[in-house]
Amino acid sequence: MAAIPNPLGGSVAFPTAPPISASQWLNTPMPLALEQLRGRVVVLHAFQMLCPGCVSHGLPQAIEIQRTFDPQTITVIGLHSVFEHHDVMTPAALRVFVHEYRLTFPIAVDQPSETRSLPQTMQAYAMQGTPTLVLIDARGRLRAQHFGAVSDLIVGAEIGRLLAEVEASALRACPASFTAGERPTDGGACSAVDSSRGPLAGVRHRLQAGSYIPPPKPKHLSAMGGA
Amino acid sequence: MAAIPNPLGGSVAFPTAPPISASQWLNTPMPLALEQLRGRVVVLHAFQMLCPGCVSHGLPQAIEIQRTFDPQTITVIGLHSVFEHHDVMTPAALRVFVHEYRLTFPIAVDQPSETRSLPQTMQAYAMQGTPTLVLIDARGRLRAQHFGAVSDLIVGAEIGRLLAEVEASALRACPASFTAGERPTDGGACSAVDSSRGPLAGVRHRLQAGSYIPPPKPKHLSAMGGA
Amino acid sequence: MAAIPNPLGGSVAFPTAPPISASQWLNTPMPLALEQLRGRVVVLHAFQMLCPGCVSHGLPQAIEIQRTFDPQTITVIGLHSVFEHHDVMTPAALRVFVHEYRLTFPIAVDQPSETRSLPQTMQAYAMQGTPTLVLIDARGRLRAQHFGAVSDLIVGAEIGRLLAEVEASALRACPASFTAGERPTDGGACSAVDSSRGPLAGVRHRLQAGSYIPPPKPKHLSAMGGA
Amino acid sequence: MAAIPNPLGGSVAFPTAPPISASQWLNTPMPLALEQLRGRVVVLHAFQMLCPGCVSHGLPQAIEIQRTFDPQTITVIGLHSVFEHHDVMTPAALRVFVHEYRLTFPIAVDQPSETRSLPQTMQAYAMQGTPTLVLIDARGRLRAQHFGAVSDLIVGAEIGRLLAEVEASALRACPASFTAGERPTDGGACSAVDSSRGPLAGVRHRLQAGSYIPPPKPKHLSAMGGA
Repeated sequence: MAAIPNPLGGSVAFPTAPPISASQWLNTPMPLALEQLRGRVVVLHAFQMLCPGCVSHGLPQAIEIQRTFDPQTITVIGLHSVFEHHDVMTPAALRVFVHEYRLTFPIAVDQPSETRSLPQTMQAYAMQGTPTLVLIDARGRLRAQHFGAVSDLIVGAEIGRLLAEVEASALRACPASFTAGERPTDGGACSAVDSSRGPLAGVRHRLQAGSYIPPPKPKHLSAMGGA
Repeated sequence: MAAIPNPLGGSVAFPTAPPISASQWLNTPMPLALEQLRGRVVVLHAFQMLCPGCVSHGLPQAIEIQRTFDPQTITVIGLHSVFEHHDVMTPAALRVFVHEYRLTFPIAVDQPSETRSLPQTMQAYAMQGTPTLVLIDARGRLRAQHFGAVSDLIVGAEIGRLLAEVEASALRACPASFTAGERPTDGGACSAVDSSRGPLAGVRHRLQAGSYIPPPKPKHLSAMGGA
Repeated sequence: MAAIPNPLGGSVAFPTAPPISASQWLNTPMPLALEQLRGRVVVLHAFQMLCPGCVSHGLPQAIEIQRTFDPQTITVIGLHSVFEHHDVMTPAALRVFVHEYRLTFPIAVDQPSETRSLPQTMQAYAMQGTPTLVLIDARGRLRAQHFGAVSDLIVGAEIGRLLAEVEASALRACPASFTAGERPTDGGACSAVDSSRGPLAGVRHRLQAGSYIPPPKPKHLSAMGGA
Repeated sequence: MAAIPNPLGGSVAFPTAPPISASQWLNTPMPLALEQLRGRVVVLHAFQMLCPGCVSHGLPQAIEIQRTFDPQTITVIGLHSVFEHHDVMTPAALRVFVHEYRLTFPIAVDQPSETRSLPQTMQAYAMQGTPTLVLIDARGRLRAQHFGAVSDLIVGAEIGRLLAEVEASALRACPASFTAGERPTDGGACSAVDSSRGPLAGVRHRLQAGSYIPPPKPKHLSAMGGA
């Protein structure tokens, strides 16, 4: 359990994200552990392959997050949390699904429970169902958990906030001439994060200096909506 | 021109956002000035009422931003920057458009230039056309400028980052017992920002303590995608 | 007023579509009259340039109809029926709108009424507002009129039915060796309509004979959904 | 093999649709045979439960067709034609899929072939893959077959044409006072089809007589686009 000191008088505590219990992994040569991913923001997307809301909304959103952000900064992980129809949504069926839907991020098969229909990671996170989107910050703490559809704007804002924390942590913690050994263990990515880029990767145009550059051919500049 | 001290050795400078030059305003009892909005993140959406990309993408995104975030934290402002067909996209026509499309955020009519087809604010920002989305941080600095369509995920991430800066600034700058007079002028909203909420407003479910609450009726929990 | 003899005992009557009263036309070198268009199905799309439902649904549907069907068989006509905000939705503004939205089908500016806010064609059809989609059969009769959004599936079915009538009329009415002079005046397009094609233009694949052609590479044939 | 006499001198032949070979049926108390469905237009939608294009496009279109038209006139039938990953897309898995996606139209499990990966009905229709949409007319003849995505407008037009043929057949063939025994065997549904309704079911408003009814409150009548 970690706590942020809060100068306003209180203290904000976020629980450490429970470990991922997996019976097997897809799309990765070796199992992943959240501890390895300190310094990165982790987007954990829990789904079931035959859950319509996962297929129509959750997984496309996970793919879009994976496409938009630098994977060294934002790591998307799928979690196949089967809590119903276990005999049909098997790991073999999941492999076909992953192949057909061209999912390329690492996917954990949530470890079945011996006594309950809910698998173990799903229980540890107290998930209510699928799809569930979980955000874990660079220090490994649970920061948001959404059951059902959540808009790209909200997820984006949450990711942006967590990225900013990574950068602020790097700016505050790292001396001007640091070595790998001096790097703080909680925030991490001092050298990896460029605070002038950060979550703004993907920005097509950024005004640099205030100097005025006359835009060419202003008559034809309005961006058209596609069909 | 403001600069962030960068402990890594360099310095990141962002220009102050140019003022909005408006011939008139809609949806606000009095003109707005960016200086008034210090402490808030400003989303400035430049559009033309007969620009298809603005109508199909830019304005719906601006509306969605307005709906998603607390207006005291994120202020959406429209900017009607007419650079073509001036005789048709008049302020009177804009009023009808705003009424029919039910836009409720403040909208500035960009001040026409006497010598050029491009209006003055559009020139000051060196915009390339419409739609253009501009993000201004709580200290009044230009942080991002997009011409054309940009995804909700990217805009969300940028907004989240700027919100995190507001909160970090408040946390750092404000003493535990401060008064309004002691409030710093650059960051602002010490008392207004709840750092445990911030950009995560809209989150439906957040795991608090790690205690396990068994989800009811797990068989019917998968969220369905509606038609 | 025309009537179809109904062997079941009744009779089905459809009114002749009222003429289009236009103050001017766009996208056509000369005014159109419905009488000229006998033998074709006419899709008349009434809109206002600042009507959100027209811009988001009605006009894209009209464009899609124009793209999908042979214009010699299905003729799409726009009707700019301004019944509010007359001073802003002028013909000059419409020209800019048509240019920006790249509309290429003929568009009539509905003739203003001297005494009422509703223009004359809109009155003649007793339209309730915009968007309104009107279908006129090859004999010039009113067959369907929709106010508001109507699905592509329903509009498609109505168009298909009217096209089938054109073809059936041609098949029944035209002798095996007819001349232009012998062509019936009500249905028309005997020679122009290929009953083995007709409304099925656009079909990508049609099974011809029953002979079996083994599909190549069956493992990779499933059509993928786009992003 | 049936042929339409063509007064223009040729003859248009359409093959009889091959029978559906099914190992089992879902959503129906007893197996269906195309012969039973003479007099109705049949929409046969061939899919695989793990085919992305089927899930995102084909099945939603089939559901929309089922919702839009009278099932006594247009009968939608699903065909689960597994030609790959047979061990995963089993009938048991299909039952879960059908339950989760709330499909309610009858679905045939295409009879596996002993010697080939393609199932028997898929072979008989020479389908190239999934999704494939097949239209069968009221006389049981193959009229259209689409592999991949096809627009609602095109499918709608094809359905409308086939419905018109049903009605025309009924109008021509049935005497004013007929009995079931006198009913023609090729078209069938004389009494079932109301030629003044037919494919235009779903039309919200149809202008009846030409009399003018002044629309109430014209100022507020423009239909708004939804969110």
